[in-house]
Amino acid sequence: MSYEPQEIEELSKKAEILTEALPYIRRFSGTTVVIKYGGNAISEGLESLDSFVEDVVLLNFVGIKVVVVHGGGPQIDALLTRLGHSSTFVGGLRVTDEETLESVKMVLLGQVNPLLVSRINLHGALAVGVSGADGSMVLCQPRSKEHGFVGEVIKVDASLLENLLVQGRVPIVASIGVGVDGQMYNVNADLVAAELSGALRAEKLVFLTNVEGIRSDASDPKSLLRQLRAYELKDLLDSEVIQGGMIPKAEAALSAIERGVHSVHLLDGRLPHALLLEVFTDQGIGTMLYG
Amino acid sequence: MSYEPQEIEELSKKAEILTEALPYIRRFSGTTVVIKYGGNAISEGLESLDSFVEDVVLLNFVGIKVVVVHGGGPQIDALLTRLGHSSTFVGGLRVTDEETLESVKMVLLGQVNPLLVSRINLHGALAVGVSGADGSMVLCQPRSKEHGFVGEVIKVDASLLENLLVQGRVPIVASIGVGVDGQMYNVNADLVAAELSGALRAEKLVFLTNVEGIRSDASDPKSLLRQLRAYELKDLLDSEVIQGGMIPKAEAALSAIERGVHSVHLLDGRLPHALLLEVFTDQGIGTMLYG
Amino acid sequence: MSYEPQEIEELSKKAEILTEALPYIRRFSGTTVVIKYGGNAISEGLESLDSFVEDVVLLNFVGIKVVVVHGGGPQIDALLTRLGHSSTFVGGLRVTDEETLESVKMVLLGQVNPLLVSRINLHGALAVGVSGADGSMVLCQPRSKEHGFVGEVIKVDASLLENLLVQGRVPIVASIGVGVDGQMYNVNADLVAAELSGALRAEKLVFLTNVEGIRSDASDPKSLLRQLRAYELKDLLDSEVIQGGMIPKAEAALSAIERGVHSVHLLDGRLPHALLLEVFTDQGIGTMLYG
Amino acid sequence: MSYEPQEIEELSKKAEILTEALPYIRRFSGTTVVIKYGGNAISEGLESLDSFVEDVVLLNFVGIKVVVVHGGGPQIDALLTRLGHSSTFVGGLRVTDEETLESVKMVLLGQVNPLLVSRINLHGALAVGVSGADGSMVLCQPRSKEHGFVGEVIKVDASLLENLLVQGRVPIVASIGVGVDGQMYNVNADLVAAELSGALRAEKLVFLTNVEGIRSDASDPKSLLRQLRAYELKDLLDSEVIQGGMIPKAEAALSAIERGVHSVHLLDGRLPHALLLEVFTDQGIGTMLYG
Amino acid sequence: MSYEPQEIEELSKKAEILTEALPYIRRFSGTTVVIKYGGNAISEGLESLDSFVEDVVLLNFVGIKVVVVHGGGPQIDALLTRLGHSSTFVGGLRVTDEETLESVKMVLLGQVNPLLVSRINLHGALAVGVSGADGSMVLCQPRSKEHGFVGEVIKVDASLLENLLVQGRVPIVASIGVGVDGQMYNVNADLVAAELSGALRAEKLVFLTNVEGIRSDASDPKSLLRQLRAYELKDLLDSEVIQGGMIPKAEAALSAIERGVHSVHLLDGRLPHALLLEVFTDQGIGTMLYG
Amino acid sequence: MSYEPQEIEELSKKAEILTEALPYIRRFSGTTVVIKYGGNAISEGLESLDSFVEDVVLLNFVGIKVVVVHGGGPQIDALLTRLGHSSTFVGGLRVTDEETLESVKMVLLGQVNPLLVSRINLHGALAVGVSGADGSMVLCQPRSKEHGFVGEVIKVDASLLENLLVQGRVPIVASIGVGVDGQMYNVNADLVAAELSGALRAEKLVFLTNVEGIRSDASDPKSLLRQLRAYELKDLLDSEVIQGGMIPKAEAALSAIERGVHSVHLLDGRLPHALLLEVFTDQGIGTMLYG
Repeated sequence: MSYEPQEIEELSKKAEILTEALPYIRRFSGTTVVIKYGGNAISEGLESLDSFVEDVVLLNFVGIKVVVVHGGGPQIDALLTRLGHSSTFVGGLRVTDEETLESVKMVLLGQVNPLLVSRINLHGALAVGVSGADGSMVLCQPRSKEHGFVGEVIKVDASLLENLLVQGRVPIVASIGVGVDGQMYNVNADLVAAELSGALRAEKLVFLTNVEGIRSDASDPKSLLRQLRAYELKDLLDSEVIQGGMIPKAEAALSAIERGVHSVHLLDGRLPHALLLEVFTDQGIGTMLYG
Repeated sequence: MSYEPQEIEELSKKAEILTEALPYIRRFSGTTVVIKYGGNAISEGLESLDSFVEDVVLLNFVGIKVVVVHGGGPQIDALLTRLGHSSTFVGGLRVTDEETLESVKMVLLGQVNPLLVSRINLHGALAVGVSGADGSMVLCQPRSKEHGFVGEVIKVDASLLENLLVQGRVPIVASIGVGVDGQMYNVNADLVAAELSGALRAEKLVFLTNVEGIRSDASDPKSLLRQLRAYELKDLLDSEVIQGGMIPKAEAALSAIERGVHSVHLLDGRLPHALLLEVFTDQGIGTMLYG
Repeated sequence: MSYEPQEIEELSKKAEILTEALPYIRRFSGTTVVIKYGGNAISEGLESLDSFVEDVVLLNFVGIKVVVVHGGGPQIDALLTRLGHSSTFVGGLRVTDEETLESVKMVLLGQVNPLLVSRINLHGALAVGVSGADGSMVLCQPRSKEHGFVGEVIKVDASLLENLLVQGRVPIVASIGVGVDGQMYNVNADLVAAELSGALRAEKLVFLTNVEGIRSDASDPKSLLRQLRAYELKDLLDSEVIQGGMIPKAEAALSAIERGVHSVHLLDGRLPHALLLEVFTDQGIGTMLYG
Repeated sequence: MSYEPQEIEELSKKAEILTEALPYIRRFSGTTVVIKYGGNAISEGLESLDSFVEDVVLLNFVGIKVVVVHGGGPQIDALLTRLGHSSTFVGGLRVTDEETLESVKMVLLGQVNPLLVSRINLHGALAVGVSGADGSMVLCQPRSKEHGFVGEVIKVDASLLENLLVQGRVPIVASIGVGVDGQMYNVNADLVAAELSGALRAEKLVFLTNVEGIRSDASDPKSLLRQLRAYELKDLLDSEVIQGGMIPKAEAALSAIERGVHSVHLLDGRLPHALLLEVFTDQGIGTMLYG
Repeated sequence: MSYEPQEIEELSKKAEILTEALPYIRRFSGTTVVIKYGGNAISEGLESLDSFVEDVVLLNFVGIKVVVVHGGGPQIDALLTRLGHSSTFVGGLRVTDEETLESVKMVLLGQVNPLLVSRINLHGALAVGVSGADGSMVLCQPRSKEHGFVGEVIKVDASLLENLLVQGRVPIVASIGVGVDGQMYNVNADLVAAELSGALRAEKLVFLTNVEGIRSDASDPKSLLRQLRAYELKDLLDSEVIQGGMIPKAEAALSAIERGVHSVHLLDGRLPHALLLEVFTDQGIGTMLYG
Repeated sequence: MSYEPQEIEELSKKAEILTEALPYIRRFSGTTVVIKYGGNAISEGLESLDSFVEDVVLLNFVGIKVVVVHGGGPQIDALLTRLGHSSTFVGGLRVTDEETLESVKMVLLGQVNPLLVSRINLHGALAVGVSGADGSMVLCQPRSKEHGFVGEVIKVDASLLENLLVQGRVPIVASIGVGVDGQMYNVNADLVAAELSGALRAEKLVFLTNVEGIRSDASDPKSLLRQLRAYELKDLLDSEVIQGGMIPKAEAALSAIERGVHSVHLLDGRLPHALLLEVFTDQGIGTMLYG
């Protein structure tokens, strides 16, 4: 053959990686993957965003039904500041009065959601922005008096998502809920993602965040846990090894597993193509939780 | 019979109105009606809004495929003011810099759209909020250098709306467009409504606004024109009888007729159930334009 | 606005009645309503018939699946008289020899059925005449030796009706049955309506007759019962408050409730648009029976 | 083998006939065959009727879409006589006043049609009786003033028949038509059969009558024409070789050929299983007309 | 009529045989019939083959879903001889080393299967050749060490056959199996036919062979058993009345009955149109086994 | 992050290659690719075969409709030799007498086809072996008297392939044709692949062979042409730069382009994963021909 040895090696490397991906494509094609994409990840900038967007589009093209659920904490803070408003947090949740709720809706539905939709469309998939109020998808009641319009999910109706997925579209879900009286609520995006992944009988729920995964020793990067069973995670929660912002995420992950999701993944969204590497390579990255 | 004469008369009146509606239900069931619902109408308050919402739901229930397109001018002004920003208008169109565009998106997608969606859902239909960026539905290019991110519609792709309509859902469309590069644009809602009604081969395009219709003498309320053919409207435009904010609406109406929409209606949204009365009664209200 | 106050009031009244109908349209759209239309009602003349026909067409247009079952007692009497034949009745049922059966078939299939079909078609729905012999829909055996060809329903097969309803058509069913040997039978139309409403899992079974409903005191028009539960009707039957021709109707109504029909209505077909008013207004008319 | 020679021969004969039918089954399966079954044929008695019915059922079972159109002349005469009424004929057509029309409807819809439906159902197919008024299938206008309610076909809508055929049912069509005003008409069954066969793009139109076919010399049984092209039939009509009741049949046959029906057959319905033999054997019977 | 008496009798005979077939067509149309066509039958020559092929096509045309399973013993022997190879048989099964397996595949897939496919296509049906390896239809494991590549069926997946049958095609199945490791196996065609008939919930399984059926006394042709229940066949096996090559066939027949096949037929394929006569005539031929 | 720099680089390389493939997956998903896999390639051994098979399965999993067409020249030679038979070639085509044809069928259908089917099934796709005789897919006539049973393609009917592709299956086509009289023919696999790719409106036709592609100077490996337009290839043929076995391949390629296939590729099947690298990488390999 007229190919140079170096060229042959290069081609051979490419072929190897593509074929390594084969069994994963075969296994996950046709299944549903719900991805929680956090506000922190979004604020990393357009390059980081596009790495994520490319992964979503690739998953969509190999037949995986992808749903993206997003919040927008830092972006909400920014708008509230501009409007001369500040937030109080109770138990890690933003106390949401009427004005705050307006800002939450404006940021999630008017900034973050259309940003994700337009970038994904630009890369060739057909994204459609939806909120939990569309088709009364995420039904809520107030979580507590002091939290104001912070919603607790009562019931989810995933039929709108299923319709969009069947048409090959990629639903981008803003974590807004709605009450039986039409009142909207600010809802934790991790919980919405967990509820929807359960209702969609998803294969995977992926949290793309800004930590590498769950550590058995929070201060030791080498203690990253690659695989974890649900009961082990419960032990870590009980023994308070898991702390701070990781607690609600861990609880959402456990609730997804209980609703029948096969595995939940916590990945560091700052690693380019973290999603792709997790789904399509043998080694995987981050922490995987299973039942 | 044991019914009192007065009761008989009452029942007879009811039956008469219901049966008057019959031929219209028969004629329009299965057809598509696109409604432009203006920001002014929205600012009339919740009672007026719910009168509109009830009409939309009734149309949906008798088998009419309803699409609502909305803008939000007054609401955008309010947010810009709060953010210490003011707008310049050129040729009746808001000059839209990046910050203004952010506000436009936040208001249309984060305030007005979810308000309409949640009210319609509350009354029993299945509304779904979409923007012209979802599924690259409304493709735009900049209208001019000086207008900034004001979009001129190049092409519309109504397939997402058709999918939703087939499922019996009511799409609520925010007048946002998107460029081939993913850039979003502020687009005139009248034009978006006209383009979509053409692409959907709609039976009717209805502008719900705060005037009663088109007058042959702008200053004389008695000169309201009940029916008007396209060439007559062109004459009124040429002879400058039509003026101000009515000009773009009239142009949008003409363009819809040219794209094959059967009739365009200009109604006063302040009259309760204006939409219902127009569609289901013999007399009709407002001005009807036909080809 | 340029509308006169009186005009506004008129429009407002219309809108009110149309929107009063909304929740009923929403609730009954897609459900099945079986209507027994009696021979007495038919003999009231064309105006009364057309009031009924308009109601059937309106129900059809708002998505209700309507089945009309009819008899034709007075019309059969008329033909028999012309042919110099008279009828004996045993237990309220016409003794049916071969010649009588021929007349029954000629009247029901050749006079009454095509009359209903052509009037409904004329008003814009797609009526299709069927008899219980078509597709062996109403399978019978002889009720008794002395009744001759009076059939007792053994089994109904509603699949032909379901096919027609799915195509949006309005089946008009003549109360003729057929035996396993192909012999036709004269069957009581109230019973056929009750059996078919059960087999179709109908929402409502409506008897349009020439009385206002069931009275707790047959001689007192003010004692009309508006709502009645099945066990209450049984008591009325046991205590012989219900008498004469109302007895088989009451028994058919009870049997429909037992087969899962949600409500059975007895209405006075002489009141114009009785059917429409019952289904679409808050007050209702006649007597409603439920389980 | 242990079979007796005679048994072998018997089996061999059976196999030969079944396999002779094979190419015809292959060719006609899935196509539509419209059969005009005349009132004379019906009056031949139940045995003759059942021979016809068995053939219809067999055709239905091998995948041929069968439509039967029937009249009922002799049966109408009988009823009119019983009612002390007599008919005048103008140009071979029964002058039809209102009373005569009532008798026509009663006989066709109330006697002949249900007889055919019940016999076919009895033999295992799913027959459904329809008239040309069902679904406004056969639209008519008066043929002439002097004929009264004799209809001339303006338009046929075969969609109801197509729906029934797709469900595997056998429509039995009574030759009744309907005007745009809902008025019913007495229509010649030969013409209805020809119109429907054209609208259904039928493969064959078969006239089952009480003559063997078309003769080149009306008085000579040996002059039976087995095959005939359309232009030859026109010549026979022009040269007045064809006379009497055969004229309208010949004209209907020509009109069917013009509407694209592949072949029209005139068979003697008195020969048992004439239909079956025509369709499934090499020799065929009667006269075949083709384009 | 102008037909000669002899012609009438001839026509009458034809009609009688065609109508005798009617109830069988009605009963079996839409059901599945699996036919095992043996290598011995194939070696009888093209005329015998075409008699079989015509029967298959006729069954296909009257709506029966036909699957043909074939072996090819004599043809395999011939090729092995040509290649200078001979076979050993253990327990009636051909010991199959790698070279023998190659010959089995070449004969079944390269000779017998395409012969059947092309003859059936020639007669107008749409045959498609498949092997048990296509779509991993017949999953096998080695039967024993000493038999080499003789497969024992573990599981069958009939979905490919169902897809082909739904499209109206006639699958011709070569009795080759495949292991989970992709290794092919020589499998007994009687067993494959029995397994597939069970998986397809077939109405009938027919063994076309070169004996007339099962005899109660192997040496007495008059002792042919026309009908036999499963327990009776078991008794015949236990009491060793059944011997030699009939044993595996009898066992396969019993296993099909156990899997829910309604009847199993053993016919003499040398009798022309044996299949047709069995399915479509009252007397039937050969031996019928039922549960 | 706790990942080692080297690990990061490794992950980054993987992500890069996977995302490089993305635009190609997007572009070709849902399109049809026909691959001619030659007998020479098959004789390279199981490892080489499995590299090809993995590529086919990967293409199938990302939504490409793959059809494999194969010949088997060297394998036919081997069998003929074993059977003491030798072949004459005329104009590069094997003279095919009856005995040779038997060997061709046995090798293609009994050896090569099941080998490909079982290997592909083993890797997780659903392969189905078909020959050009199945469903009369490849209709032939004799090419010339002297060539015997060498077929010239008259017409192809790709509906069987389309049915299988719609079900997600991978058809493996043996290059056998059939005449209208049922006679089978030996057909050149390159031509069958070209005809089928045209009939399937394929995106790509790929020849996997044992040369790297087309050279402008047959003796100089550096003269490999990477891209070539149809008219340029015609020039090379006219000027006799292309010679020997490449001539029929070049002609088949041209005929596919004329039938509307977008591009034809000639690749060296000895390079592992040549197919994958051609379809999914920027550089491509071999020679690409386009219109």
